[in-house]
Amino acid sequence: MPLPDIRNICVVLVSTRNPLNIGAAARAMSNFGIRNLRLVNPYEPGFREARSAVGAAATLQDARIFSTLAEAIADCVLVIGTTGGRDRNLDNTLRRLQDAAPLVEQEAARGMVAVVFGSEKRGLSNDDLSYCHWTMNIPTAEDHVSMNLGQAVAVSLYEITRVPASTELAPSPESPALTIGDSLATSAESERLAASLLQALGLSGYVKPGTDAAVEDRVRRLVRRMRLTSGDADLVQGMVKQILWKLQKENG
Amino acid sequence: MPLPDIRNICVVLVSTRNPLNIGAAARAMSNFGIRNLRLVNPYEPGFREARSAVGAAATLQDARIFSTLAEAIADCVLVIGTTGGRDRNLDNTLRRLQDAAPLVEQEAARGMVAVVFGSEKRGLSNDDLSYCHWTMNIPTAEDHVSMNLGQAVAVSLYEITRVPASTELAPSPESPALTIGDSLATSAESERLAASLLQALGLSGYVKPGTDAAVEDRVRRLVRRMRLTSGDADLVQGMVKQILWKLQKENG
Repeated sequence: MPLPDIRNICVVLVSTRNPLNIGAAARAMSNFGIRNLRLVNPYEPGFREARSAVGAAATLQDARIFSTLAEAIADCVLVIGTTGGRDRNLDNTLRRLQDAAPLVEQEAARGMVAVVFGSEKRGLSNDDLSYCHWTMNIPTAEDHVSMNLGQAVAVSLYEITRVPASTELAPSPESPALTIGDSLATSAESERLAASLLQALGLSGYVKPGTDAAVEDRVRRLVRRMRLTSGDADLVQGMVKQILWKLQKENG
Repeated sequence: MPLPDIRNICVVLVSTRNPLNIGAAARAMSNFGIRNLRLVNPYEPGFREARSAVGAAATLQDARIFSTLAEAIADCVLVIGTTGGRDRNLDNTLRRLQDAAPLVEQEAARGMVAVVFGSEKRGLSNDDLSYCHWTMNIPTAEDHVSMNLGQAVAVSLYEITRVPASTELAPSPESPALTIGDSLATSAESERLAASLLQALGLSGYVKPGTDAAVEDRVRRLVRRMRLTSGDADLVQGMVKQILWKLQKENG
């Protein structure tokens, strides 16, 4: 999977209280290929052993600790503060995550970019925010703006590393559920299937005298609406053939 | 902030072991305005008191519990399984989250859509996946595909609610042949049809001794791939019932 250049992206956690949240953030970072974790005054020194850090041991081990945000972001060309969605700080431009992500990527081509998360209870202080070039938030329901820290990190990094929805790989309207290699049944295949099905319906008494043409039309349309792949048309044909064989045998 | 119509989206958690993860999922749901939580065989009955459920108490209280996935998704027109990124199941089409999200929105305009998450350790079983129309995954770093459950729910719902609601009535890629007024067959309707078809296949000798489970799985998947409307599901059900009646009569 292609990811943007992410060596120049770091996550900064300021005054995190719960070591499990540090572990959760590290795990999310690992999932999205971002390894540079910086901690400012973590409350609990035992965070490196955080149990929830599945797959994130290396990220946790390499995490660097700072006593001030200023030191933590000293080498960064862009510093983005995250907020819970309230405009608590009017001095900073606030961008939605999806608008911020392309800017992160752009700047990361030039130098280190920091995405800064505040403590679970209080978020980032005004002093912290004064080190940020601007802020971003994750759009949430108005009555539930407060996100879990690990989840906020996960969503942010997902968006930052997100490759746009593809147009070329998108399901074509003509063949929505196709897996690679499958092609849609040809008209001839559909027709063969419709014919077998009609035969089975005839033997079972579904087709009432005088309704043959109407039922034939209905079955033909039905089979086409199913948009079967060639493989599925074969599969259904096999089933109908078997049923047909049994019906014919019994009718003897 | 504008959100798409999300009353028709539900989250289904199958065999979740850790009640904290149920709380975390409920919190993420609250953040993104999605309230319909369904639990299949949660391991720990005390989940409603999960401490991590900040802001998610109502979602947890209203969560419904089911003993099977089939029951949990009986009213759903689209069921999406989530996977850890490995193509463990080649029978289901796999879409990236960002490609899946627009389809979720589109179908949610017509009926209930389920996003299904498996247990922390094992994900969804093959049997679970046989109830899914297709699967989606969150693109992750290749060496760290396993996401925390609550984070996976958060990222998925972020992406699903991220896409602006479309106002046009463009034909759905998922069901090109729908005419206005048709709704897709519910899972329960698909299940009834699969059951009748299986019975007919049994009577006709299609099902060889010892292959019942495999054929059942195959038929269930086949019926879901057809993406029948409710009307067409009725039509096919009627055909199969008639054939069934005939086969039973002949078998005495």
